[in-house]
Amino acid sequence: MIDFKYLAQKYDTPLYVYDFNHFTQQYNALKNAFKARKSIIAYAVKANSNLSVIRHFANLGSGADCVSIGEVKRALLAGVDKYKIIFSGVGKRDDEIKEAIQKDILMINVESEAELKRVDAIAKELGKVARISIRVNPNIDPKTHPYISTGLHENKFGVDIETAKGMYIFAKKSENLNPVGIHFHIGSQLTELEPIREASEIVANLVRSLKAINVDIKFFDIGGGLGIKYKDEELIKPYDYAQAILSTLSGLDVTIICEPGRFMVGNGGWFLTKVLYEKVNGDKRFVIVDGAMNDLIRPSLYNAYHKIEVLNDNKEISKANIVGPICESGDFFAKDIDVPKTNPGDLIVIHSAGAYGFTMASNYNTRPRAAEVAIEDGNDRLIRRRETFEDLIACEVDYLV
Amino acid sequence: MIDFKYLAQKYDTPLYVYDFNHFTQQYNALKNAFKARKSIIAYAVKANSNLSVIRHFANLGSGADCVSIGEVKRALLAGVDKYKIIFSGVGKRDDEIKEAIQKDILMINVESEAELKRVDAIAKELGKVARISIRVNPNIDPKTHPYISTGLHENKFGVDIETAKGMYIFAKKSENLNPVGIHFHIGSQLTELEPIREASEIVANLVRSLKAINVDIKFFDIGGGLGIKYKDEELIKPYDYAQAILSTLSGLDVTIICEPGRFMVGNGGWFLTKVLYEKVNGDKRFVIVDGAMNDLIRPSLYNAYHKIEVLNDNKEISKANIVGPICESGDFFAKDIDVPKTNPGDLIVIHSAGAYGFTMASNYNTRPRAAEVAIEDGNDRLIRRRETFEDLIACEVDYLV
Ligand SMILES: Cc1ncc(COP(=O)(O)O)c(C=O)c1O
Ligand SMILES: Cc1ncc(COP(=O)(O)O)c(C=O)c1O
Repeated sequence: MIDFKYLAQKYDTPLYVYDFNHFTQQYNALKNAFKARKSIIAYAVKANSNLSVIRHFANLGSGADCVSIGEVKRALLAGVDKYKIIFSGVGKRDDEIKEAIQKDILMINVESEAELKRVDAIAKELGKVARISIRVNPNIDPKTHPYISTGLHENKFGVDIETAKGMYIFAKKSENLNPVGIHFHIGSQLTELEPIREASEIVANLVRSLKAINVDIKFFDIGGGLGIKYKDEELIKPYDYAQAILSTLSGLDVTIICEPGRFMVGNGGWFLTKVLYEKVNGDKRFVIVDGAMNDLIRPSLYNAYHKIEVLNDNKEISKANIVGPICESGDFFAKDIDVPKTNPGDLIVIHSAGAYGFTMASNYNTRPRAAEVAIEDGNDRLIRRRETFEDLIACEVDYLV
Repeated sequence: MIDFKYLAQKYDTPLYVYDFNHFTQQYNALKNAFKARKSIIAYAVKANSNLSVIRHFANLGSGADCVSIGEVKRALLAGVDKYKIIFSGVGKRDDEIKEAIQKDILMINVESEAELKRVDAIAKELGKVARISIRVNPNIDPKTHPYISTGLHENKFGVDIETAKGMYIFAKKSENLNPVGIHFHIGSQLTELEPIREASEIVANLVRSLKAINVDIKFFDIGGGLGIKYKDEELIKPYDYAQAILSTLSGLDVTIICEPGRFMVGNGGWFLTKVLYEKVNGDKRFVIVDGAMNDLIRPSLYNAYHKIEVLNDNKEISKANIVGPICESGDFFAKDIDVPKTNPGDLIVIHSAGAYGFTMASNYNTRPRAAEVAIEDGNDRLIRRRETFEDLIACEVDYLV
């Protein structure tokens, strides 16, 4: 049991708290599920990119799935082995591609023909060979929120099977490209296995037909997307996940890469916020807290559900909205939920905040971003200090004339 | 005419560009509209809180509407006269209230009974008198986006008329409170005058009844909310706006405070981004640019329309989505709009990005926030430098063990 009250006292609120032991468990569960094969778990840095979080996974042997050169730099700084780093993303700038090649990471995951040509040209300029994979869009409906669904043709991700084939042939011919991998990722917060299996099957068949033309794929990257329990979701079990994937790979000698983000950190994170006031407007009750949408935007942006716990002993319960101090009606954490009567200073714990929480935080309303704390083996330590006013103006105060 | 290509070349992209002369025009238009009365235009810092932007308004004589102690500090640092600074917001922490009293700003705008009692207690501890206003929720439908509508009882803002009366009586009796103002703000991006007039009438009547019980309101704060043209909106003219407000104030000797944000800066800002690649998936065309939802979240968050201009001479036009490099389908600037064929490096200008653009930016996907540039009298200058990787890890690298 984490002593949230103690942590709120010690580090103040709003605060992000992460349970590194939970992270370890999640990593191990997935790694074990794939133990019948060579595999790399490449943690998706975008979910929670704190350097200490990445280092924790690196120490467990994890690789890193990165979507910007900044994330690649984070991974390297945190100690991830460069041969376990993948650089994905639909839009890479030339300078990002260049740096990724120079840093000699495992592979650049290419998402369009135009990009493949840029990687080729840049590798040539550098006199290097760029290892690449190609993101295939298997056109499978993952049945998740439209904003985080990525496996259908109508979205911007990857290329279709035929295009991918042509790109592999191009890459095979180029002296500056080495097509070592194939990649797909159909969406996030996935709770149904069948779309993943189907996608894997489609992509495995592509690997087979590439083999026939002497393109030898070594890394079979199945993306991330495993869902977690926010409320009452039925989850995919790591074992079943691995089996479904493996069932599509017979006869193929590939290393499996898996890029989980949310699964690794989502339920090992909590956002702590304190009650400022209660108020009643008309017949609506509002509990106003010191955290806000700038700290955790998922409820506003995706209408996401997060379990909310009020740490007091009050038994008087009624419906309320939990809202932040930002001057927008969209600044809420929950609407019309049962909440005990609160007093100023009461602590509220927002669950499942480890993924896509802090990473999406902003300074809207000139609010400093929260501190982040790690708990490991019962010990707590700061892993990111709270921002100060000086931090917020650091890039602009010198230009004030 | 602003030379966007020159600016993109000089400062790189993604980039925010602001026309300070436009800001001046907007300020003057509103100030003039109210010239028949004592008035303070208190620029709503939340819309664009760059220090140089605030200083520009301060130099014109503007006050500042602030919603956090951070915004108050920005206003003071930028040179806004302390007697023109208002501190609003539904949830103020004790330390914020304390600092606001100590800094002796014009008034603290109180949004609940509980908060009024905190301000009273804190002022007492400090041995000071806190000037306050009370935000009244006139229960008027402003007919705007639900996320930015704030004048109905069902939202968290302000207090109803009866509650407000009780609070004024409490404040009047207290030795540590001086109730000098009254406030309402019914929403943002308002394009209909009648709801504003009605709200003003309701609040003016409250001022009259307060006068009868010897509570003498000096500042009549009509909030912000004036809409701007994103597409084809019919706008409220500043003159009509002022007349509508003034028509409700007969017999009252009050200074009008107006807190515009969007109106002041929205159409004087542009977001510049460059094309990385084009790609076609299925029958969808995507133009992938180097800016993303972390830079400008309004399209994702509010489904907001921003006019988009491609600066090339291509006459071959077809429908496309303009999307960023972030790994979410929600990362888009526009969908299914007419776009000329583009080449990598082509410049795209996103209009009306001066308000709620940069202020809501995040570092999602470890993307450094954009630089900001001011144009004034034909001269351009940097007012916020682009973030570096080092800036992004500054608060966490020392804790990496
Ligand atoms: C290519 C890719 N890999 C991995 C992930 C991680 O997804 P999740 O956090 O759902 O595991 C994402 C998320 O958007 C992604 O786009
Ligand atoms: C109290 C208050 N005043 C002023 C503003 C500024 O609004 P706008 O930018 O629409 O003028 C807001 C915006 O949310 C607000 O809540």
